[in-house]
Amino acid sequence: MAIITLTTDFGLKDPSTGAVKGAILSELNDITIVDISHEVSPFHISEAAYIIKNSYKSFPKGTIHIIGVDSEITPENKHIALQLDDHFFICANNGIMSLIASEINPQKIVEINIHDNVETVFPVLDIFVKVACHIARGGTLDVIGKNISKIKQISKFNPIVNEQQNQIMGHVIYIDNYGNVVTNISRKLYETIGKGRNFVISARGVTFKKVYENYSDAIDFTKPKETRGADGKKLAIFNTANYIELAIYKSNPQNVGSASTLFGLALRDTVNIKFE
Amino acid sequence: MAIITLTTDFGLKDPSTGAVKGAILSELNDITIVDISHEVSPFHISEAAYIIKNSYKSFPKGTIHIIGVDSEITPENKHIALQLDDHFFICANNGIMSLIASEINPQKIVEINIHDNVETVFPVLDIFVKVACHIARGGTLDVIGKNISKIKQISKFNPIVNEQQNQIMGHVIYIDNYGNVVTNISRKLYETIGKGRNFVISARGVTFKKVYENYSDAIDFTKPKETRGADGKKLAIFNTANYIELAIYKSNPQNVGSASTLFGLALRDTVNIKFE
Amino acid sequence: MAIITLTTDFGLKDPSTGAVKGAILSELNDITIVDISHEVSPFHISEAAYIIKNSYKSFPKGTIHIIGVDSEITPENKHIALQLDDHFFICANNGIMSLIASEINPQKIVEINIHDNVETVFPVLDIFVKVACHIARGGTLDVIGKNISKIKQISKFNPIVNEQQNQIMGHVIYIDNYGNVVTNISRKLYETIGKGRNFVISARGVTFKKVYENYSDAIDFTKPKETRGADGKKLAIFNTANYIELAIYKSNPQNVGSASTLFGLALRDTVNIKFE
Repeated sequence: MAIITLTTDFGLKDPSTGAVKGAILSELNDITIVDISHEVSPFHISEAAYIIKNSYKSFPKGTIHIIGVDSEITPENKHIALQLDDHFFICANNGIMSLIASEINPQKIVEINIHDNVETVFPVLDIFVKVACHIARGGTLDVIGKNISKIKQISKFNPIVNEQQNQIMGHVIYIDNYGNVVTNISRKLYETIGKGRNFVISARGVTFKKVYENYSDAIDFTKPKETRGADGKKLAIFNTANYIELAIYKSNPQNVGSASTLFGLALRDTVNIKFE
Repeated sequence: MAIITLTTDFGLKDPSTGAVKGAILSELNDITIVDISHEVSPFHISEAAYIIKNSYKSFPKGTIHIIGVDSEITPENKHIALQLDDHFFICANNGIMSLIASEINPQKIVEINIHDNVETVFPVLDIFVKVACHIARGGTLDVIGKNISKIKQISKFNPIVNEQQNQIMGHVIYIDNYGNVVTNISRKLYETIGKGRNFVISARGVTFKKVYENYSDAIDFTKPKETRGADGKKLAIFNTANYIELAIYKSNPQNVGSASTLFGLALRDTVNIKFE
Repeated sequence: MAIITLTTDFGLKDPSTGAVKGAILSELNDITIVDISHEVSPFHISEAAYIIKNSYKSFPKGTIHIIGVDSEITPENKHIALQLDDHFFICANNGIMSLIASEINPQKIVEINIHDNVETVFPVLDIFVKVACHIARGGTLDVIGKNISKIKQISKFNPIVNEQQNQIMGHVIYIDNYGNVVTNISRKLYETIGKGRNFVISARGVTFKKVYENYSDAIDFTKPKETRGADGKKLAIFNTANYIELAIYKSNPQNVGSASTLFGLALRDTVNIKFE
C-alpha cells in the first residue's frame, strides 16, 4: 500500500485538509495518508523544511510527500516533483527542497506541466493530489513534467564560519512544542570546526560551555530529588535531528516558561559558538 | 472500504475524538476514518457548515459524514441521518444541513429512533457511531429511523439583495487559517445581480473595485521583486469555494497581521457590494 | 489489522509525530495508527492519564497504546510495557499507569530491556515503536523485557474523605475543550459517601445542589426559548467519564466565557462536597 504524507500551512480547522484527503481517496481506495504537520506558520518555508527534513527519513522508501506551503503557481514559483533519497516530493520550486536536502543530490527532478487545463486557486488539491496519485499508482515522473537539472537554492539559512575558523555564527531556525530553541548549527559542523577545543555558546545574555547528548545527562541523579534542582535547568544538547538545541529541562511553556521565553530567543536570532 | 469522516467541536486534546475512533474500529475493522476538522468553535453550526460544505464533495460518493456539533438530543434537537448528493450525513436537526445543502434536495431523510435503550451524554459516541457503522455495512436508513420530509431551515445566514437590485448586503461567515475573511456572497449571486456592472465592495473602512481569480493575479510580475510591494497587498478574490474573500497577499497572522485584524473584520460583520 | 494509538505531548507542529508514524509504517505495512491526543500539556502525566483512561476502552481488545509523555529514560524513569484490561500499554514507569488503571490489576508487566544497543534522545521513536510493532506482530512481552510485579504508584490525585464521612475533598483534574471543569470525584465515590443525602458542592465562590445526568436536563423546555435563559446557565453533571463536572450550558470559551474562566477554576483547585 502506497503512503502519501501531507505537510502544509493549512491549519487544522479549515476545510482544506479534508478536501485534499477526500480527493486522494477518490482516486485511490487503497492508500495510507499520514499528516506530518498542518501547523507550519503561513508561507514559512524554512519551518516546513525543518519539519520534513526531520521526519521523512522514518518513512519507507517510495513514500510520496506533498508539501503545501507557498504553493500558488506564479511566473516565479513553478511546481516540481522529484525523487530524492528514494522518496518522492511534490512542492513549489521556491527553495524549500534545497533546505530539506542540502547534502543530497536529487535522483530526478521534473517541472510539473499538467496545469494547462487546470485553473485553480488551490494547487495542492487540483495539481499535487493528481501528481501524488499518479506516482502512487506506479507512474513515472516523465509523464507529468519535463526534466530539469537544478532546483532553486536558498543559502541564507546556513551558518557562517569566520576566517580564523574559531567561530560559528548561526541562528535560531525552529522553536519546538516545548519552547526549546533549535539552531542551524549541526553536530557535524561543530565537530569539524571545533576539533575538540573548549568553547562558549552565546545567545543574547545566556551562555553554555557544554553540549549534552541527552536531556537527563545534565542532571545529577546521585543527589536526592529535592536538592538537585533539575526541572527548569538550562542546557544545550544535540537534539534528535543532530542540531544544537538550547533547552530547559522539562520546561512547560504554559507555566514555568520555556527556553524561548526565558532566554528571549525568537526565530532568526543569532547563536554563536566561540572556540578557544 | 467505506469512509467515515468526522467534523466536530471536540478540539484535539480531549479524549472524545479518540473514543469515537475506537468505537468505530470496534465495530468495523476495515474502515477509513478521516478527520475533516475538530476545531469548529464550540456549538458554532454555521462554521461547521462552511467547513463541511467545502470539503465533502472531494470525497467519493457514498462517504458517511458524522457532524458532532451541538448534538445533544433535546425536545428541540432531534437526530437525523440523510442521503444527499449521494453522500450520507449524520447530525442533529438544528439547521446545519440547510446551510450545507441550501441548493440540493436530500434524497432521503430519517429521524433517528434507536435512542430508546441508550441514556447518553455523548451522542456522537453512543448514537452517531452506531448509525455510521450501520450505513458502512450497507444498511438502509429505514432501519434506524422514521422518514421525515423536511429538515430544519436556517435562512439568517443568506445575503440580502435590495429592491432596486443594485446592492448585495452580505456578511462575514468564516475567517480562515491565514486570517482571510470569507463572505457569504457567492460568485453566482454576484454575477446574477451585477450583470457585469462596475461595483464597490465595502467592509468597514476598506473598499475593493475588482475581484481576482487568483491571489497572484493582483501582483505585477513584470516589475522587479523589490519594487512590486506584493506581500501584504490587500485584494478581493473568488476563493476555492467560489465565495468572495477579502484577503492579504501572503499574510501571516502571527507577525504582519491578516485581513481579519488589519481590516478589523469579525464573524457576522457586514460586507456590501454596491453596483453602478 | 492491529491498531496502535498515540498519546503524547509532542503537539501537532513538530516533526516528532510524523517521524513516529513513519517508523511504524516502515516496520508494518498493514497497521491502523490512531491519534488519541498530541496536545497533552508538556510532561503532564495526570492530564495524559485522564485522556487515555477515558478513551482506551472504546478500542477493540488487543489495541496497543503508546504513551509519549515524560518518557526520557533515567535511573528513576524506566520503560515498561503492560497488558491490562486486555489492552497493551507502552510508557515510562512514572506513575501514569497507576492513574489510568487505579482499579484494575495488570495482567502482565515487563520492564523493557532492549535499550542496550540504543542511544537515544527520542525513546518513543527508538524504543516504544519497536515494542509496539513487536506486539502488533503477535510477539510476547517476555521477549522485550523482564517481568516485574508492580508499577509505580501515585496517590496524590485521589480525593479525600473526612473522618465523619460527610465531606469529599477533591480537586480539578482536567479542563476540557469547552472550558468545563472536570473534578476527580467519581459518581461511585459520590454515591458511596452521599447515600442519597442532600449536599452542596462548592468551588471558590460557586455552589451547586444538584448533579444532572445530561446538560439539557438543566433546561426547562416547556418554557418559550426566549425566556428560559438556557445558554450560559451553570450546572454540575456526571460527565461521560462518570466524574462530576462543573459546566456552563453551551459555553463558548472564545466569547461568552467558560466554566473555567467564569468560576475562576484552574487545574488542582479544590472542589468540595459537603453532605447534610
